[in-house]
This record gives sequence, structure tokens and C-alpha cells, in this order.
Amino acid sequence: MQLLDGKKTADDIKNEIAAEVQSIKAAGGKVPHLAAVIVGSNGASLTYVGSKVKSCQQIGFDSTLVALPETITEAELLDKIKELNEDDNLDGFIVQLPLPKHINEEKILMAIDPDKDVDGFHPTNFGKMALDMETFIPATPFGIMQLLERYKVETAGKHTVVIGRSHIVGRPMSILMSRKGNPGDSTVTLTHSRTKDLAEFTKNADIIITALGVPEFLKGDMVKDGVVIIDVGITRVDDASHPKGYVIKGDVDFAEVSKKSSFITPVPGGVGPMTIAMLLQNTLLARKIRSRK
Amino acid sequence: MQLLDGKKTADDIKNEIAAEVQSIKAAGGKVPHLAAVIVGSNGASLTYVGSKVKSCQQIGFDSTLVALPETITEAELLDKIKELNEDDNLDGFIVQLPLPKHINEEKILMAIDPDKDVDGFHPTNFGKMALDMETFIPATPFGIMQLLERYKVETAGKHTVVIGRSHIVGRPMSILMSRKGNPGDSTVTLTHSRTKDLAEFTKNADIIITALGVPEFLKGDMVKDGVVIIDVGITRVDDASHPKGYVIKGDVDFAEVSKKSSFITPVPGGVGPMTIAMLLQNTLLARKIRSRK
Repeated sequence: MQLLDGKKTADDIKNEIAAEVQSIKAAGGKVPHLAAVIVGSNGASLTYVGSKVKSCQQIGFDSTLVALPETITEAELLDKIKELNEDDNLDGFIVQLPLPKHINEEKILMAIDPDKDVDGFHPTNFGKMALDMETFIPATPFGIMQLLERYKVETAGKHTVVIGRSHIVGRPMSILMSRKGNPGDSTVTLTHSRTKDLAEFTKNADIIITALGVPEFLKGDMVKDGVVIIDVGITRVDDASHPKGYVIKGDVDFAEVSKKSSFITPVPGGVGPMTIAMLLQNTLLARKIRSRK
Repeated sequence: MQLLDGKKTADDIKNEIAAEVQSIKAAGGKVPHLAAVIVGSNGASLTYVGSKVKSCQQIGFDSTLVALPETITEAELLDKIKELNEDDNLDGFIVQLPLPKHINEEKILMAIDPDKDVDGFHPTNFGKMALDMETFIPATPFGIMQLLERYKVETAGKHTVVIGRSHIVGRPMSILMSRKGNPGDSTVTLTHSRTKDLAEFTKNADIIITALGVPEFLKGDMVKDGVVIIDVGITRVDDASHPKGYVIKGDVDFAEVSKKSSFITPVPGGVGPMTIAMLLQNTLLARKIRSRK
């Protein structure tokens, strides 16, 4: 059993990007510039956005934090998006979700210029991904593909079972794993809440990617020997014995399943740490595409 | 065994659309207007486009045929697309493929305003489909969904195996069948050229959608009793005993497989006749969306 170490891999990727930023600078080029928009003062959102800005600084990107009040109107936020779309100095930006209830998230996401949508959430970018065109892959799926690639996990001709059909993990993973290429070329089954006999699928899977949010749902008797496990679930479970009062659990019963796995992501420390690295990777790609034009 | 009769269903849909056009007219509204662009004089393409224009006339749509010479440059065609995008009198248009080799098809398709892309080939529309937003579903997949819906084929919780991962059939079908809704909510396995042991998947399938283009590939021993078969394959096979010198064959060995099927599409007369009806349906939707604005 080999751990797919997201923390180490994310650090490797950040170091590679930092080196590339140095070469861009040395050649007199413009470094990538990411902006993060945050509305209101949700604690978790502030933490996420803070980490993103900090990571930009660490690797030498320009970064801008656009903090807007909770009371901003939808029209005002749309104006701000327009301004960011038109800011030629900016390569990409993200709008941290969730937004306050009086703002229509879909309307905001649709207003982002797809060429600056480094989260890869705009339908144009999602469609490009499904149609095998160059685009920004959403951070979590992109991170999973990087883990598979860097640990040389064989995916071609394998049966991959994806659990959960969310827009940000399950659906894009089902597409990416079945596209031509490496990683990819898997036979993919997408399962979800309406699936009957889920264990019948997981028992026959060479690779399982689970994004369900049910702690320790996947047990040892639901997988076959040698399976590859990608666990995207992150749930806080109360645990009085821990100083924080909780522990983070994935969808996988790690103690049982890891014994049968060839590769497995730990939780935490697997998929989670990859997301910011992939956002930075997308921002670097945005810069490269813009510099070609 | 029940045949899924695409010819009859397509006629039903055309009649429904024609009735709706009459109501629009009676209410003093604008009827849908479809334009078809054809470059050069490929015989098959002229036939397809001719049928589309004729169908428009039959059901009371306005239609325009834009016939352009084989020698048109990419820049000139892009200008034409821009003109059609901006023509407020036009609800939707299609560009008949293939285009001459000196023209980049992807560039042309990307230039079409997604709001007028009634073929549903633009990545923005493809992405909207994958993200459960209102959009134009490509004609063949849309036709299949209509057949399943109108014949009340149960899809929720069923295991659907899609054979082939093309952008115009396999990939969109894998998405549509696994989306929430009815038809939909299937557990979907997408198989393709890199799949090992395809028969292991088809034998366990409740529904098989095949778009392979290999005549009579799917045999009776590859399916289980009660299976639902959607055959998208259309191949001409030489046959001297027929007046035309060929017969049209699907991917399915109809004689064998139909005996085990609960529902099955014939070839020809199954999925094929549905496509023009769905193009008209998309054009009607385009008109409705534009009239809301």
C-alpha cells in the first residue's frame, strides 16, 4: 500500500510554479496575477481566501484581495466582476462561495469572463473540458488527476467507479477519467444517490473516487484487493478525546480499506492540500494563454 | 418486445410543434426562424440541409438557407457567422459539417453565439447541459431522451451502459442519463475503445446505448433478458440482393438481441428520424428564450 501524499505533491507543484515565476521574471516577463473576491465576513471563507492569497505571495504571483461588504447588491457585484474582467493587469480571479442569499450565485459565475475563470466553474470551461479542449480544470478534480499522474497510477482500461455526481467533483471526475489520455482512458461508472447495489459496483472497481461526505462509508468488504482509493470526503466528526473536540474523517474506513489498497489518499493530507496548488497552476496557465495573444 | 418507433415519435413531435406555431401566429407572435449554413456542394450535406429546411416549412417556421461557395475563406465565413449572430430576426442557426479542409471547424463553432447554437455543439451549451442548466441538447442525444420519455422507459436506478465516447453521442448520453430527472437518474458506465471485457459490462446492463459504427456488433449473448436497446449505429453494408446495392445496419444484431429486449430501436427508423424533430424543438426553445428577454 502506498499513500498518495497530497501535501508533499502540492509542495512539489508550488515549488515548480515558483521556479517558473523566477524564469518569467528573469526574462523580463509579467508574473501571473490572481485576484480573490470575498463578500461578507464568513470565517471559513476568510480562511480559504487568506490561504490562497498567502500561497500567491509565497510563489511570487501578484495577488489582490477584493473584500466587499455583506450588504453589496447583486448589481454592484456584477459591476465589480465586469471591472475585473476588463482589468488587463489581471490574469484570473475567483469569487469565494457561498455568496449572501440575496445574490444569485449562478448569475455571478456566468458573468465571469471564462478566460479569467481559474476556478473552472463557468459552463464554457466545463464544456471545453468535456469536449477535450484546453481549459481550466476545477481545482479538486485537477488535483486528483495530478496525484494519479505523479504517482504513475495506471488508469487506461481500468474500471473507475465515481461515487457522487456533484458539479465540482463527481461529474468532472467521471469526464476526466474517461477522456483520452493519461491519466484517463478508464471505463467509468458514475454512481449516486439513486444507484442500487452500490457495493456491486465498488467490489468490481479498480479505482474508486468517492465524494459523498458520509464518514467511513466505504468498508473493507466493499472493495477488491489492489484497489486504488481517492477519498474526497471531508467531514468533521465530534470526538471529545481530541483537543479540538472533533476529527476529520473521509468517506473511507481507512483502517480496513487501506489493507486492501495499492494506492490510497489519506484524509486529511490527500486531495485537500492539492486544491490551492491547482488554482495556482490554472492562474499560471491563464497568464500563458494571455501572453500568447 | 416493443419497438421504439422514431419515425412515429418524430412525426408526433413535429405535429406538436406545428400546433404551437399556429398558436404563436394566432396570438400575433413571431414564429421561430432557423437558418442553415452550407459550404460547398457535398451531396450528403445538401440532402441533410435540404431536409431541415423542408421540415421548417412543413411546421410553419421561417427558414433561410445560406449556401456559400467551397472557396470561401475562413475569415469570410467568420464574418457571415457574425452577421447571423447579430441578425435579430433569426432565432437559431446551424453550420452543416463537415467544412472544407482549409477552414478550422472548432474556430467556426466557437464563433457561433451560444444563444443561437441550436445544434448544442458550443462548449458553453455543452457545459450548461453537464451543469443542469437550461440549454440546447444536441439533437441525437435529445432524440434518445425523448424516445425514453415518451415510451415511459424506466431509467431511475437502472444501470445504463453507453458504448462510445464521441462528443456528439456517447459523452452527452453518459451525462444526460446520469443527471437528476426523468429520464435520467441512471447509474451510467461509459465504455469505449480502451474498455476491457466490454461484454462483462453489457451483460449487466439494464439499458444499452450504442454508438460504435460497427454493424451487428452487439450479439444476443452479450445482453441480459429484458434489456432496453438504443442503437445509434448507422453503417452501409454492401448487399447485392438489394436494389440500392446496400443495406443500413445498426450496431446491434437485431434478430438475436430483439428477442431478449423489452424495448429496442430499429435501424433505420429508430434514433435517426428523431434528429430533425429535436433541431426544430431547440429552435422553438431559442424563440421562447428570446421572447422572454
